[in-house]
Amino acid sequence: MSDLVVVTGGLGPTRDDLTLATVARHLGRELAEDADLLAGLQKRFVGRGYAELPPSNRAQALVPEGAVPLENPLGTAPGILFDLGSDGLVVLLPGVPREMRTIFTGSVIPVLRDRFSGRLAPVIHRSIHTTGIAESVLADRLEPLLHGLPEAVSIAFLPEVEGVELRLTARGFASSERALEALAEAEALLQPVVAPHRYQALSGDLAEALGDRLSATGTTVAVAESCTGGLVAKRLTDIPGSSRYFLGGVAAYSNEAKRLLAGVDGALIEAEGAVSREVAEALARGVRDRLGADAGIGITGIAGPGGGTADKPVGTVWFAACLGSRTVATKGLFPGDREMIRARAAQAAMALLARLLEEWPDGNTDPPDGRQAP
Amino acid sequence: MSDLVVVTGGLGPTRDDLTLATVARHLGRELAEDADLLAGLQKRFVGRGYAELPPSNRAQALVPEGAVPLENPLGTAPGILFDLGSDGLVVLLPGVPREMRTIFTGSVIPVLRDRFSGRLAPVIHRSIHTTGIAESVLADRLEPLLHGLPEAVSIAFLPEVEGVELRLTARGFASSERALEALAEAEALLQPVVAPHRYQALSGDLAEALGDRLSATGTTVAVAESCTGGLVAKRLTDIPGSSRYFLGGVAAYSNEAKRLLAGVDGALIEAEGAVSREVAEALARGVRDRLGADAGIGITGIAGPGGGTADKPVGTVWFAACLGSRTVATKGLFPGDREMIRARAAQAAMALLARLLEEWPDGNTDPPDGRQAP
Repeated sequence: MSDLVVVTGGLGPTRDDLTLATVARHLGRELAEDADLLAGLQKRFVGRGYAELPPSNRAQALVPEGAVPLENPLGTAPGILFDLGSDGLVVLLPGVPREMRTIFTGSVIPVLRDRFSGRLAPVIHRSIHTTGIAESVLADRLEPLLHGLPEAVSIAFLPEVEGVELRLTARGFASSERALEALAEAEALLQPVVAPHRYQALSGDLAEALGDRLSATGTTVAVAESCTGGLVAKRLTDIPGSSRYFLGGVAAYSNEAKRLLAGVDGALIEAEGAVSREVAEALARGVRDRLGADAGIGITGIAGPGGGTADKPVGTVWFAACLGSRTVATKGLFPGDREMIRARAAQAAMALLARLLEEWPDGNTDPPDGRQAP
Repeated sequence: MSDLVVVTGGLGPTRDDLTLATVARHLGRELAEDADLLAGLQKRFVGRGYAELPPSNRAQALVPEGAVPLENPLGTAPGILFDLGSDGLVVLLPGVPREMRTIFTGSVIPVLRDRFSGRLAPVIHRSIHTTGIAESVLADRLEPLLHGLPEAVSIAFLPEVEGVELRLTARGFASSERALEALAEAEALLQPVVAPHRYQALSGDLAEALGDRLSATGTTVAVAESCTGGLVAKRLTDIPGSSRYFLGGVAAYSNEAKRLLAGVDGALIEAEGAVSREVAEALARGVRDRLGADAGIGITGIAGPGGGTADKPVGTVWFAACLGSRTVATKGLFPGDREMIRARAAQAAMALLARLLEEWPDGNTDPPDGRQAP
């Protein structure tokens, strides 16, 4: 038998959820109702206005004899841990990804550390998050440096819609300290190439990194979005505590909404077109001024699938950021479908404000590298 | 050998992308540059402002002899199809999920249909999408009906953050027509229970269903969001063509923004609290009136993790929808973490407007079932 078996899914309350009963039978364990779990479920439902626990959910208080329930803070199905001694561990987790990850991180990893620590060689990762540069371009620029990576440090390119993550992995070191030294050396080696495109965020989320910076500098922000229609506001407010720096946003989808919500002059839209540097800047400054924020973001573009022209094809997006007297704007021509274009435009606009906050030379309103990744 | 081998990932332009070379070597095929692919890549990069194709990307024009490249409309890595005759098919797809799905749907499924059609028994699914009811409650209400399901039609409960999908599956029928008849019979059987919680959308996306309804009735909408901070606007504008009915939205995160962007009276917020029926209704009507829309949505709540009180715990959300002279509001107490609470609140608010549009009895402003799923 394996030292560790993990099963996901099938722990729910419905008749097609068969995992718990199947595994318990296979291991020869009877199921018994756990009083604490039952009380927790009852409290959960009654607290939400139900007269009583739905009968189906009662099955979620069943635990096989000798097994340990693992708390699920996000749902009704607990994880279940069987410790079979020298026969290893069997872990059952719910299939809902957020619940599975939360229980695995909170309850399973500590058990694995404890159980297998002596047998696990340290494998340590470090992530470098970039945005606004194509995977291939980044790879070509890094290529001449890669032979200088410390031995036993490898690099992986992980492209996502919002940017490329470089994951450095140290394996086979005698100690964690040695592995961390090698990772720091590798990071320093790559830094000159990645610096202009890099952002720092524990979770890999640029909205979090930008929020940290806004928070640390006491800067408030407002956003006006046309083609991204609320996505930047949504991402900024995904972050707990964002009310400290996010004052508000407008999804100014129609030209009339641009005028009414962000004070963009109708004549300007008429003269320059809705998708233009001037309108992006007017959106950023308009919403900033209207809400009395320190900084503003404005986005206007063509997310498709319709609406493109030869001059302004689908994927054309102008975005602007303003802070004090400075306003910067740049144009992107983003590839992909509607969802990808919107995700990339939102990311690029946040990256522009992050750079304006951190490193923009006073008075220079042309971005050092306005070219967008294909 | 299997009739079909599908490999995903490792087709990118960087040195850790080894799939193509490995599989080609295993099958004894040489790699050769495909002139059409190369021209497409060059056009793609030059069209986006690059002087030339980055050297790394050139490798993505390589195709093993005798293999067929499968077009990737969303990225640079094509899929690759090896037809080994009686030894089966080998398909390589990029690992980026959207690219993988697009190529699989567009290029691989037709090949599989063609190749294996005679050997595939029809398996037909039908999805019933619900929102606002807990999986367990739905299961308990459906339980007495399930023995009446046609034989060879099975049901699965698929819980997602935004709602529960019921998936009916017909297997083993002699023909597709017979399978479809059985599915229609099953659907009719379940309809009385699911009707109040059901929405119709091909993709399972309530924003799409709501958009279809708005579009069909020529109704325009505006939204004002506090705790969901732009998520409803983002979801509505995810849908291509949403500019026909979505006029604009405001993310009125601060009380000041509620006043400035949606005209909510500061005294009302003071008197009732920012999280209240009155403020939700004022947000919906305020943004609707400001943008001259037919319908409005207003949301205000506590997404957490901070900000909860004994009276209004984290997860408390008031949401309102208005249309003409009618305004309806309801309160949710949503479980889960910040992201789940926001997702559920956005979904519930869209569902409220959808019901107001479709079935609300004139003059009755209390929802038939305001209770929220735990």
